[in-house]
This record gives sequence, C-alpha cells and structure tokens, in this order.
Amino acid sequence: MKIEVLDTTLRDGEQTPGISLNAVKKLRIATKLDEIGINSIEAGSAITSEGEREAIKLITSQGLKAEILSFSRTLIKDVDYCLECDVDAVNLVVPTSDLHLKYKLKKSQSEMLQDAVEVVEYAKDHGLLVELAAEDSTRTGVEYLREIFKATIDAGADRICPCDTLGILTPLKSFNFYKRFTDLGVPVSAHCHNDFGLAVANTLSAIDGGVSRFHGTINGIGERAGNAAIEEVVVSLNTLYKNNEEDAESKYTTDIKINQLYKTSKLVSRLSNAYLAPNKPIVGENAFAHESGIHTDGVIKNSATYEPITPELVGHRRKFIIGKHVGTKGLDNRLKELGLKVKKDQLNEIFYKVKDLGDKGKTVTDTDLEAIAEHVLNIEQEKKIKLDELTIVSGNKIRPTASIKINVEDRELIEADIGIGPVDAAINALNKGIKNFADIKLEEYHVDAVTGGTNALIEVIVKLSSGDKIISARATEPDIINASVEAYIDGVNRLLENK
Amino acid sequence: MKIEVLDTTLRDGEQTPGISLNAVKKLRIATKLDEIGINSIEAGSAITSEGEREAIKLITSQGLKAEILSFSRTLIKDVDYCLECDVDAVNLVVPTSDLHLKYKLKKSQSEMLQDAVEVVEYAKDHGLLVELAAEDSTRTGVEYLREIFKATIDAGADRICPCDTLGILTPLKSFNFYKRFTDLGVPVSAHCHNDFGLAVANTLSAIDGGVSRFHGTINGIGERAGNAAIEEVVVSLNTLYKNNEEDAESKYTTDIKINQLYKTSKLVSRLSNAYLAPNKPIVGENAFAHESGIHTDGVIKNSATYEPITPELVGHRRKFIIGKHVGTKGLDNRLKELGLKVKKDQLNEIFYKVKDLGDKGKTVTDTDLEAIAEHVLNIEQEKKIKLDELTIVSGNKIRPTASIKINVEDRELIEADIGIGPVDAAINALNKGIKNFADIKLEEYHVDAVTGGTNALIEVIVKLSSGDKIISARATEPDIINASVEAYIDGVNRLLENK
Repeated sequence: MKIEVLDTTLRDGEQTPGISLNAVKKLRIATKLDEIGINSIEAGSAITSEGEREAIKLITSQGLKAEILSFSRTLIKDVDYCLECDVDAVNLVVPTSDLHLKYKLKKSQSEMLQDAVEVVEYAKDHGLLVELAAEDSTRTGVEYLREIFKATIDAGADRICPCDTLGILTPLKSFNFYKRFTDLGVPVSAHCHNDFGLAVANTLSAIDGGVSRFHGTINGIGERAGNAAIEEVVVSLNTLYKNNEEDAESKYTTDIKINQLYKTSKLVSRLSNAYLAPNKPIVGENAFAHESGIHTDGVIKNSATYEPITPELVGHRRKFIIGKHVGTKGLDNRLKELGLKVKKDQLNEIFYKVKDLGDKGKTVTDTDLEAIAEHVLNIEQEKKIKLDELTIVSGNKIRPTASIKINVEDRELIEADIGIGPVDAAINALNKGIKNFADIKLEEYHVDAVTGGTNALIEVIVKLSSGDKIISARATEPDIINASVEAYIDGVNRLLENK
Repeated sequence: MKIEVLDTTLRDGEQTPGISLNAVKKLRIATKLDEIGINSIEAGSAITSEGEREAIKLITSQGLKAEILSFSRTLIKDVDYCLECDVDAVNLVVPTSDLHLKYKLKKSQSEMLQDAVEVVEYAKDHGLLVELAAEDSTRTGVEYLREIFKATIDAGADRICPCDTLGILTPLKSFNFYKRFTDLGVPVSAHCHNDFGLAVANTLSAIDGGVSRFHGTINGIGERAGNAAIEEVVVSLNTLYKNNEEDAESKYTTDIKINQLYKTSKLVSRLSNAYLAPNKPIVGENAFAHESGIHTDGVIKNSATYEPITPELVGHRRKFIIGKHVGTKGLDNRLKELGLKVKKDQLNEIFYKVKDLGDKGKTVTDTDLEAIAEHVLNIEQEKKIKLDELTIVSGNKIRPTASIKINVEDRELIEADIGIGPVDAAINALNKGIKNFADIKLEEYHVDAVTGGTNALIEVIVKLSSGDKIISARATEPDIINASVEAYIDGVNRLLENK
C-alpha cells in the first residue's frame, strides 16, 4: 500500500522556537523535498507576514512536482492570502475541542462547523484543493468530529486530517482513533506531535489503522517537542512491515528516495540551525556509531549483529569510536584504518592506555589514539610544519591582528595578517605562511558548544582539504585561538604526511 | 499496576560513543537516581576496567535503597568481577539470535543454553540476584527463547528480559511479543532500543502486553540511537493511561518522583556532556516553549490548549519565544514580563519590526526585543557601565593579558588582568573594574556551537547573578572576546538597572 507524505518542515517545523527561515532557505529546502519524492509540501502560513508570502510565492513559481500548500485558519482573509501566493492547496485548520473552542475562539461547535463549511466552499470556489485539519481532535468527541468532517466533505473538502495536536495518543489508541475516520470516502492523514516521544509510533499505528497519508517534518522539528520525524516513519515503513522475515518488500511503500534522507536531514539542520542530538534515530551522528568492545567486535564480524539497517540505505555512514568500552578487536581495526600496524603486545599496551584515559572520563579521539600509538610504537612522525610563535592583538578598537612564526622543513617563516576576529586573523596569517607548500582549503570550522566558566576547555574541529583529500583534525584547549591554530596545523601536517 | 524501573544510564547510556563517566560522576548520577525512586540501577560492567570496578564499588558502598546491578556476560570471570564489586544483582546477557550465536560467538543454541544455566547457577550459589537478558531476542525464534528462559529460571534466574537490541519492534508487534513471556512465573522486563524512534512506544506496548518492569536511560542516551528514555515512559504511564478523561489516576504507577525528572535530565546531560536537542520530549528546552501567535495566545488564555501536561509536573518551566510567528498578544505579554508597558500603536510598531527581523531569518532574543521596544518607546536606558576600550594580547608563548577602560557613572576606570585564555583574561579584568560597584557572579558561560568558517558569528550567553537575582544576557559577534565582554557588560547593566 502506497503511503503519501505531507512535509510541514517549512510550517510546523519553522514554528520551532528559535527557528526562522528566510525565503532563500525555504526554497532550498522545498527543492530538496521535491527532489526526494515528498508528495505535498506545506510551504508556510500565508497570513504570517509579507516575507512569508514572498517565500511561498518563490516556491510556487518553481513548477515543482509536489503539491504546495499553505496553512490557513477558517477566515476568508487567510484564504485570500493563500490565493495571492498561488498555492495548489490549503491546510485548513479547524479547532474542534471544547477547550480550544471555549478558551481560544469563544465559539460554539455549531458556529465552528458553519465557519468551516463557508471557508471550504470559498476555497473550493477559488480552485484550491482543501485538506481539512481538525485541531486538537484527540480531545474532541468522535461524534462532533465525524459531523464536521462529513459537513466539510459535503462542502467540497478533498482530504481530512484529525490532528493529535498535543501528542496525547498512545500507539494502541492511535490505531483505534484513526480507524474511525477511514469510512468517509476521502483520504485521511495522520498528524502526530511528539510531546511524549510517541509521534512516530502513533503515525505508524494510524497507518496500520487505515490512513493513507501522514504529516511530518524532517528531523522531527516543530513547536514544543516537535512533529513526527519523516525519516523515522519512512524508514520504519520500509523496513519493519514485512509480512515475514524473508519478504523483500514491506507491506507499505512511499515515493521517498530513502538514500537521500541523511543528506536532507543535514540540509535542514544546517539551514535551520537546529542541531540534532547525536543519538537521533536514522540520521544522528551516532545512529551507526559503535564504541563498546562487544558491539564493535560484532559489527566487524557481521554488521547486521548490531545494525538493523545499513547506514548506506539512508546515505549515512558507519563510525567506530574508541572509548573505554573498546575491545582489542575494535582498537586493532581502528589502528589499521589509521595506517598503523601493531604487534599483539603493543596492541595490549595501547589498549590499557586507552582504557585508562576512559576511566578518567576522557574520550579518545583519533588524534589522541595516534599519539598513544606513536608513543608505544616509538615512531615520532616527522611534522612538516611546526608552530614556533603565535601572537595576537585584538580588542574593541583594535583591528584583530596576528603574527606567526613557523618552521617548514627547517626553514623559518614569519607572516602577519588581520581578520574579522583574532581566530580569523591567526588562520589568515598561517595560510599566508603555508600557501607555498600546500594547497589547503578550510572546508569547515566547528567549535563545540562550551558550557561552564570562561576557563572551560574549548574543542575546535577543522575539516581541511587538499585536492580530493579531506581530513578532520581537532584540538582542545582553554584558549580558542591556540586551539584553532593547533588543530589547523595538525590537519595540514596530516594532509602532507599522506602525500 | 505498579511498574518498576531499571535504569541503565550508567551502562547502556555510558556506551554512547563519546560518553565516558568517571567514578565521581557515576556516583552523583546513581545517588540522584536513587533519590528519585529508581528501583534498580545498573552501575556498569565490572569486567570493563579497573576504573569501572572502582566506580561500581563506590556506588555499592553507599547503602542506596535501589538494587545495584552489574552487566555480565555468561562467563565465570565476569561474575567474579561482579562479586568483587559487591553488587546485589547481575544483568546476565545471553545472546540468543542465530546471527549473534553464529557470527559473534560461534556457538550452537544448546551450547549457549548450557553456558547460561551454568553461569546462573554459579551466580545464585554466590548470593546474586539474576536477571536474565536475552540479547537480540526479537530476531530469535520464540520456541528457543522460551526454552532458554525456562531452563535458566529452573536454574534460579529471578527475572527475565527479552531485549529488542536493534529496536526493530513496532508498537503492535511489541505488545504481542512481550505477552508471550508473561506466563513463566517470574517478572518480565522490557528493554527497547531506539533505532527507528520507537523505544518509548514499544516499552509502553510491552507494558500493555503484561510486563511489570522496563529498562531505560535518562535522556534516552545509549549506543547508536539510544535506549527508551525513562522520563518519556514514566510521564506517559502517569498521564496517558487513564481509563477515562475524568479519572485522576492512571492505570499504571511507578515509584518515580516525576517532579524531579527535569533536574535529573539536566544533571545527566551536564555530567555526560550529551546535550539534548531542544525538542527533546518532556525535558528539552523547547518542550514547554511557545512561539507562534496562535499557540502563545492559546496558552496565555488556558495553558491546557497547547500543553498536555504542565511544565511544573516534571519540574520544568514554560517559555514564550518571540519570533516571526508571534502574535500581538504574546508580544504584549513578553513586553510586560520585561517590565515594558506599551500603547496599542506602539505595540503594533514593535510587532512589525519583530516580524521583519523574523522574515530576514533572525531570531529575536529578549535583548533584541528590549532594544526594539526602547527604540519605539524612545527610552534609552541609562547604562551604568559603558565599555570604552578593550585590548587583549595572547599567543602560544604569551600569557593571555587584557586591559579594559570602562566608564562607571562618569568615572573612568582602567584595569588589567591575565587569564587562562584571552576571554578569561578580559572577563577577569572587567570583574576587577566593577567589583566595587556590584557584587556580580558569573553563574554560567555558554558559547553556542559554531559551524562555518573562522569568520562565522559566535553567540555567547552569560548567566549572571547578584544576590538572589539571576539574568541571562547574550551577544553575537564574529569575535568571541568582544562578544563575551559585550554580553557580560549588558548583563551587569541589566542587573544594576533592576536594583
């Protein structure tokens, strides 16, 4: 059975406190959503502001394959703004619970029904497709819900969507609840919120209950605890609904290009500045990461032992992390990946040093591991570039200025430069110094969130490229400038080493 | 029906790639878990390392109310290490799926069963309580599972736990799967992983299916996508399982002090450095935050319109965020909270300025809002402290040094100090300058994660206190030092204003 997906990343998702997407960002996301096979894209709420309408118009002018909707209240002026934006459809939201009618709108059930019918007729008369979303429907009597759905379907509504606005369904309740609306002759959508962490499960149960569409957002962003995460629902539908183990096909399909989900997640996370928890299912940085010895050992032997799907399925990749739970097999594997061959007794020595760092509460990065291994193997890598002196001057009335003295293959080089801040100045000076030896590009500069005092350790990660080689290097120091320069030089040396 | 909770934050949770907890941190978390009513605490895996055993011993020596367990494989040496740590019980993990037996252990089903029975007998002979956890049981034939559970129960196992190691159950499957083990005469635990975002739902369905205990972690941390989040399961059990709307009591209860869940979440997040997504259900920073006009308006009229539980229930608090979806009601409310009374036309002007910033993709912080409001109201707050000059010198061979020149009520003050890095030096110098005027304490210093280039904007948030007043201030600049000083001075001025 084909399940259709309505993406509301650009509307419910953008209502996330702190997230604001301008027109250009909205267009980039909409284009990607269209590309991966999303059936309907809710581009925003036309009534919100002039800028919002510009964004929706920009999206509707692209001729995307997906249906483009705008949110609308049951007000003629809202529909007029939707028409101005040239959308295909409206997501017409009708509050139905006593609580919403009494406190928010001060309307009776019959007044609400009348308003809804009127606005549906108006929207249909003006050529719009109408999906009627009953807000807070899970705290509404089923009788009234069916009545308002029937009346609005009679008035022309094309689809209906009982919304679990507060995320209060449980998986078993969701199955029974959504089942009750599948006999009204139009497609039914599920719309589940994640207040109790159940949005994905409730969506899946609604589909088992007979709905053929669902609403969700990429990464599950949205007001409060967010909406059903599209990537989790889609991959679950693809993977967990086989009638028996041997079946190649799941009983549900979607139009979504699953191998684009990780990329799409990254795009939304970057453009919205809503960073994901590392343990976010399917797309989080740890979703296919393994640390403990037992797990690493298992995955190396057969990845299916500790991975329900391959990372490649969703366009992600596997990571082995070295920490205190590492086993010798995982450690040996990682060392090999880093190009280090060790004997058994050396492996054991490295193993105990890693465990010891772990017991002290430290995470062992690749750089740390290399340093430990080099110490044990007694091979000090010949560093091409060594930092001798770094000096920076900065302030509110001073142009940030940095000078560096570096040794490159026993030659001494001194350079100075300015920047937008002291880190920028230092990296600029450094780049001047090395540009004759290496063609290095800073692909990404990342500082982990710091919480504590002004003397807390700051972790800087740089991603550098030279030709088609990309590497990451990191450094941890209480001084962000020193950490940045250290990470950068370490990265450059490792790029040069491997040449 | 009472549901018991086994917390494995210190074992499964600590296996999260990148998380490592030393003995002191483990003890702090265990003490808190005991305090909030967790029934069983899995303190770690005794075989892992010397440091891990020290941590477990530290915990077992406290005389906590909770049962303390260690993880153990079916090896006598693992049990011996558990005994050395003086734990009450072992979580004895027995891989049961063909995949795990064949690839990981190279054992037959009957060899595994024999090993398990032997080790159960050994553990029982040595006075340990035994919970038998069947690893990857959801990919194991039910017949073999029942056989191994029966044999180990005969050998003395006190509880059983079929584990959904790869998180592949769906809510409906979970109900049926766990139901099959409730007739064996011992308590059954659910242990669900979150690879598809279904750990909480599957745990709840298992409870509906008849299990009386579940395993989980605070914040859902754990290998890959993590484990069932205890706070989500517990609050769901408390809130979503009333037989009808009017019931005060849910059909399930736990011993957990629900109003401590937010605090516990923060503690684990801080000690593990595993920061939460803002939209994390129940405990995330946005779980009770409202931005859009419709939602804010509703919550102000009656919080139940858009909140399924009150934030106070879990010890959290409500937040209104000003962004492009704000309505005039929410804006007026926030301005009042900030102590600013505005007339209707002024409110409208502020409203349009906020929308405009939102359209440009900017989030409007309190500070921004105050600045906009002050501009509209034409009241420039008299700043007590003004920064005149800031100069910093730093480098790898230079002690970070800062000097500042500030104006405090028309007096000029110059101070200098050193620090562990340039930010620290600047704040130290500033503190010297203001210490005679105000007794200010830096409670928290936070830099948001920065991704982009070395010229990216850096957002610094400081939390300052003076007596019993606490405020937050923030500044965004490409230069971390200027941003830190700016945020700090802004915060101090606001603390002094309100005096």
